[in-house]
Amino acid sequence: MARPVRGLGAPEGDLGPIGPRRGHSLLSSRLNSARMAKRDLLRRKVEDIDISPSSEVARLVEAMGRGGGFTAKKIAVGVEILRTMFRRPACTTFLSFPAALMATGVRGVLRALVEERLVDVVVTTCGTADHDLARVWQPYYHGDFELDDVALHRLGVNRLGNVLIPNASYGIVLEKKIQPMLRNLWDSGVRAPSTSELLWELGRRTGSRQSLLWWAWKNRIPVIVPAMFDGAVGYQLWSFWQGHKEFAIDQFRDEADLAELVFKAKETGALMIGGGVSKHHTIWWNQFRGGLDHAVYITTAPEWDGSLSGARVREGISWGKVKETAKQVTIEGDASAILPMMVAAALGRPHR
Amino acid sequence: MARPVRGLGAPEGDLGPIGPRRGHSLLSSRLNSARMAKRDLLRRKVEDIDISPSSEVARLVEAMGRGGGFTAKKIAVGVEILRTMFRRPACTTFLSFPAALMATGVRGVLRALVEERLVDVVVTTCGTADHDLARVWQPYYHGDFELDDVALHRLGVNRLGNVLIPNASYGIVLEKKIQPMLRNLWDSGVRAPSTSELLWELGRRTGSRQSLLWWAWKNRIPVIVPAMFDGAVGYQLWSFWQGHKEFAIDQFRDEADLAELVFKAKETGALMIGGGVSKHHTIWWNQFRGGLDHAVYITTAPEWDGSLSGARVREGISWGKVKETAKQVTIEGDASAILPMMVAAALGRPHR
Amino acid sequence: MARPVRGLGAPEGDLGPIGPRRGHSLLSSRLNSARMAKRDLLRRKVEDIDISPSSEVARLVEAMGRGGGFTAKKIAVGVEILRTMFRRPACTTFLSFPAALMATGVRGVLRALVEERLVDVVVTTCGTADHDLARVWQPYYHGDFELDDVALHRLGVNRLGNVLIPNASYGIVLEKKIQPMLRNLWDSGVRAPSTSELLWELGRRTGSRQSLLWWAWKNRIPVIVPAMFDGAVGYQLWSFWQGHKEFAIDQFRDEADLAELVFKAKETGALMIGGGVSKHHTIWWNQFRGGLDHAVYITTAPEWDGSLSGARVREGISWGKVKETAKQVTIEGDASAILPMMVAAALGRPHR
Amino acid sequence: MARPVRGLGAPEGDLGPIGPRRGHSLLSSRLNSARMAKRDLLRRKVEDIDISPSSEVARLVEAMGRGGGFTAKKIAVGVEILRTMFRRPACTTFLSFPAALMATGVRGVLRALVEERLVDVVVTTCGTADHDLARVWQPYYHGDFELDDVALHRLGVNRLGNVLIPNASYGIVLEKKIQPMLRNLWDSGVRAPSTSELLWELGRRTGSRQSLLWWAWKNRIPVIVPAMFDGAVGYQLWSFWQGHKEFAIDQFRDEADLAELVFKAKETGALMIGGGVSKHHTIWWNQFRGGLDHAVYITTAPEWDGSLSGARVREGISWGKVKETAKQVTIEGDASAILPMMVAAALGRPHR
Repeated sequence: MARPVRGLGAPEGDLGPIGPRRGHSLLSSRLNSARMAKRDLLRRKVEDIDISPSSEVARLVEAMGRGGGFTAKKIAVGVEILRTMFRRPACTTFLSFPAALMATGVRGVLRALVEERLVDVVVTTCGTADHDLARVWQPYYHGDFELDDVALHRLGVNRLGNVLIPNASYGIVLEKKIQPMLRNLWDSGVRAPSTSELLWELGRRTGSRQSLLWWAWKNRIPVIVPAMFDGAVGYQLWSFWQGHKEFAIDQFRDEADLAELVFKAKETGALMIGGGVSKHHTIWWNQFRGGLDHAVYITTAPEWDGSLSGARVREGISWGKVKETAKQVTIEGDASAILPMMVAAALGRPHR
Repeated sequence: MARPVRGLGAPEGDLGPIGPRRGHSLLSSRLNSARMAKRDLLRRKVEDIDISPSSEVARLVEAMGRGGGFTAKKIAVGVEILRTMFRRPACTTFLSFPAALMATGVRGVLRALVEERLVDVVVTTCGTADHDLARVWQPYYHGDFELDDVALHRLGVNRLGNVLIPNASYGIVLEKKIQPMLRNLWDSGVRAPSTSELLWELGRRTGSRQSLLWWAWKNRIPVIVPAMFDGAVGYQLWSFWQGHKEFAIDQFRDEADLAELVFKAKETGALMIGGGVSKHHTIWWNQFRGGLDHAVYITTAPEWDGSLSGARVREGISWGKVKETAKQVTIEGDASAILPMMVAAALGRPHR
Repeated sequence: MARPVRGLGAPEGDLGPIGPRRGHSLLSSRLNSARMAKRDLLRRKVEDIDISPSSEVARLVEAMGRGGGFTAKKIAVGVEILRTMFRRPACTTFLSFPAALMATGVRGVLRALVEERLVDVVVTTCGTADHDLARVWQPYYHGDFELDDVALHRLGVNRLGNVLIPNASYGIVLEKKIQPMLRNLWDSGVRAPSTSELLWELGRRTGSRQSLLWWAWKNRIPVIVPAMFDGAVGYQLWSFWQGHKEFAIDQFRDEADLAELVFKAKETGALMIGGGVSKHHTIWWNQFRGGLDHAVYITTAPEWDGSLSGARVREGISWGKVKETAKQVTIEGDASAILPMMVAAALGRPHR
Repeated sequence: MARPVRGLGAPEGDLGPIGPRRGHSLLSSRLNSARMAKRDLLRRKVEDIDISPSSEVARLVEAMGRGGGFTAKKIAVGVEILRTMFRRPACTTFLSFPAALMATGVRGVLRALVEERLVDVVVTTCGTADHDLARVWQPYYHGDFELDDVALHRLGVNRLGNVLIPNASYGIVLEKKIQPMLRNLWDSGVRAPSTSELLWELGRRTGSRQSLLWWAWKNRIPVIVPAMFDGAVGYQLWSFWQGHKEFAIDQFRDEADLAELVFKAKETGALMIGGGVSKHHTIWWNQFRGGLDHAVYITTAPEWDGSLSGARVREGISWGKVKETAKQVTIEGDASAILPMMVAAALGRPHR
């Protein structure tokens, strides 16, 4: 009988359900062995974090702020800025993030921001749609950064950091589900949707409260994807276009929506998680109204390589993308570690 | 009389033309002072690196490889893979990079790869077009990561890491030059170019051998930009569209070009510099032919945040984006520091 | 009248006590201006974090663990390992950390581990003694990473990241307080203490429950400093030696203590925060008993430079410094952001 | 018959002697398999880099400096500062580095700095002595960061990043060679050497021009190790002390040597590679003379965690460890990748 693969979060003795890795390197040999089976690998499903306001977390974050030192202080500053953005009706709030977090429990935190209308517009990458939709229909699994990628490939399991995505939970299910949705859209007369129109329609059709895109549709929060073709949903669009050459994605209208949003806003704020196109497009449009008033940036990218991802928020001041007087902070670290704490604290009331 | 601003690379005593920073913090007060003038700040122009094969650099890199340790070894491995990709006629070679490097001397190295036909297709971001074109007409300048962004903003100077870009060298000149080009394209009947068609046309119209896009046009090397609207050239397109609503960018044809490229290729390789959409789109399309055969990835992103940018090349094996048997390496570091050495070495012959 | 310096955490409008930075770059000019005064800069004291068990934090961490992704999962794994180490009487637990955290509120978290006897031995650097003792007598202050170091130097204020340490709170007070303590030790016949004997004696003489060293003395937990001369307390020792050439520090006895500790232990565990000598000395001695049984390592150092600080815990397995079967995890991030949450969760009981 | 292990730098087809990894993940299974033998793993020896002045490398670095961007510019600035330090007879130059580089080919570069008397004093960690001495007698080998640490442990091979050190090349040979040296020292009447005296004596007794310590002895360049007991040579000292309780290491005299050095110096400079105790002790002592006049710091550590290792050189200005007017630069990156280029360039004359 196949024994459970160790190191993948399966319960282990007194360590409880989270199960740290044990003898990680034995794993490889198991995976390569004849006894290896996919069912041993895919044992523990990724579960979305159900975020709720916490006064204890708020209190901890305040103590970290009073502590003054290093990133702890910045987290506390960030929480204050989030509170301000979330509470001010006049503030049009952007949320930007790259796709990888949507493959993890942090999807629950991001979805809550959309569900609770704490943000007004989302800018992200194609992968966000991929993972959000795929996970409505199929599970993702706990894995490990050090699994053997050749062995995984042979099993048809894709690795995304320490998350495992079997082909059946990704390309296969997306192909099966999205083509009918696109045909349905086409049949209803849609010819050239903007990315936010398209994503609302896809989200709506999932009928699932698990889905960030469903909530975006429900709450009329635009989700804009400047690089719409760079991922599995984009590939489905391209695939559909092969048989429907009049079909198009009208990104000029996304841009027009962003223009209208920033020109009408009295105040703008942004919670930006990670860099790349999502961050850049957020600050790019804000420059046309004189810059963001509030900004929280969470990043793992270093400043010294000159990249946009590594640029601290203050660099945006020189470009007019962030106001000279903005309340802003750059918080260095992995959002999976920091964001749940920040949102729980921002929504909570500290005991005093 | 205004004295020269120190710390910006102006000649200083016996330190020669490169002039390290001296009393950096005095700079802020100068910049804020009444005597501060833009001409004191913008004294030293960014010059493209003129890369040439070097046997001494090749020899140094080989010694670093024999040394066995840490990144030095990886650089030597990377140079060997580059040599293989560059020399094999059967290998269709992708070059991907984000825009920031185009604002520096490394533009010269990237342009050389296109000029010498060492690569067959480029995947990049909108900013690559912005900087490549802007620099044909106006200079960029040496700066410092720690300049005062509020002071810079008041002077109309944008900071990109330690590079300074006055408004006159960016938005203003791009507006002035690109609108007539777009009108000219429109008048010639162009209605819905793909991004690579558009960028060839813009490059061609510069008439400048300084321009990477000019060489791309000249050598018929497609430059594909999946997030075409995320930057200054994209904004010019949007601006043009306001008055020409039939104008469109047909990204489906870019995708079709990429599809044809990978399906026809006997072998593929990629030099990927930095992450984000450029890297992802490169490996994304290669999965449809069973993965890259050769891959060199230069990155500053950490693996532990689960991001695509931080993912090592080997993660791509699980997805089929890189072959199980690919010759591949991930080299950690800033490409501005590493790439010139790698290209000089790859083109050079070591003395033995 | 001098107006308050903005950007240093002073209360600002509706942002509450944590006060994010606002127009940071104006700060430099203020600091350089004639109106600048030290009292404007040193307004907000660093306060130690008072850590307490939290079931809400524990619940959040468990949800992060179930989320499966990236660092969030590792934090949950780390908390499980900490619980195991803290609860098992048979486990001899090492705590290693570098000094910088002792200059911040995290000193409160580290002190709690010693006060509550959750660890059995501490390995650290000289700066830990410097900051722990100095802060008994004088405050440290909130600052900012981007303050003007030349201006600070002229004001006699040292910068440690975003913490400010006036000379009066460091070298001056340490000189004044430690020389009499050393004379007192000498007069009581002490000639060649080990570092742990010395630090107990210094801690005891503070008579302060604020002090980690006081609690170490009180609870008989050795604090070992392999590079005892590398800091302000070390300099005081050297200074004292000038007039007492028979005085010595007997590090061989520290080593003997460590030897006895590891040879007697049934099981060992380590919470290692940051790298350098503190981490290395911890795993170094554990190799002589066949390696650590439990290990949690929190680090910001990258693996690819080959440094000991960047080495993941698993590298220690090859050396026999960590057991093949150890429960271990490497968590990437700043301990100031992560450790308070981990300790609050490890001590808390999740509601279920 | 055992087939060669792939991925370890063994020659592979047309890729030449540097041999990038191929199917890395197959490696683990091989290593675990019954056929695995140590001789398959330990095939390629680490060779020291033989550094020589290079005008082509100097020219490349100057072009990188003119390019203005990101780390490339800083490398060029660093080379200028090195040239100044190396050429000025009045400048007392410190070299600090951690041990890991001594396990790689970079040992050749560091040794050259001592051999050519380009530096006046070295501050480092115990591991520098460990690796420098061990490699006189036994080889180290090429490895890979992703080898299976459990399998390595069972083979008695230690992993240091991507370098492999069999037990026979480390603890075993050091025990065998160093104990007789210590007995010899004892017999010649040595009772309480400073660390620099001890290391000169050990270096001298190797009689090997391969050894950095031999050149340090030969050229009378002190090598100071503030944490002398934290490594294999330190363990040998402790071991020897068990039978010779009058034996001691007198670190007060190292401190006195450093004091004399800084107080006599007209000017000081430092090439600091990596952080930790080595860097701190270098800048620590320089504060007593008003700070370094020249400083080049190469680091991979981030600034945001507040650590000394991550602190940029400019932070030292606030402490008086670096002069307000110092010529200084912090270069982010792995020294194994950057240092060989910098030294080859600093010693070379560019063609003009």
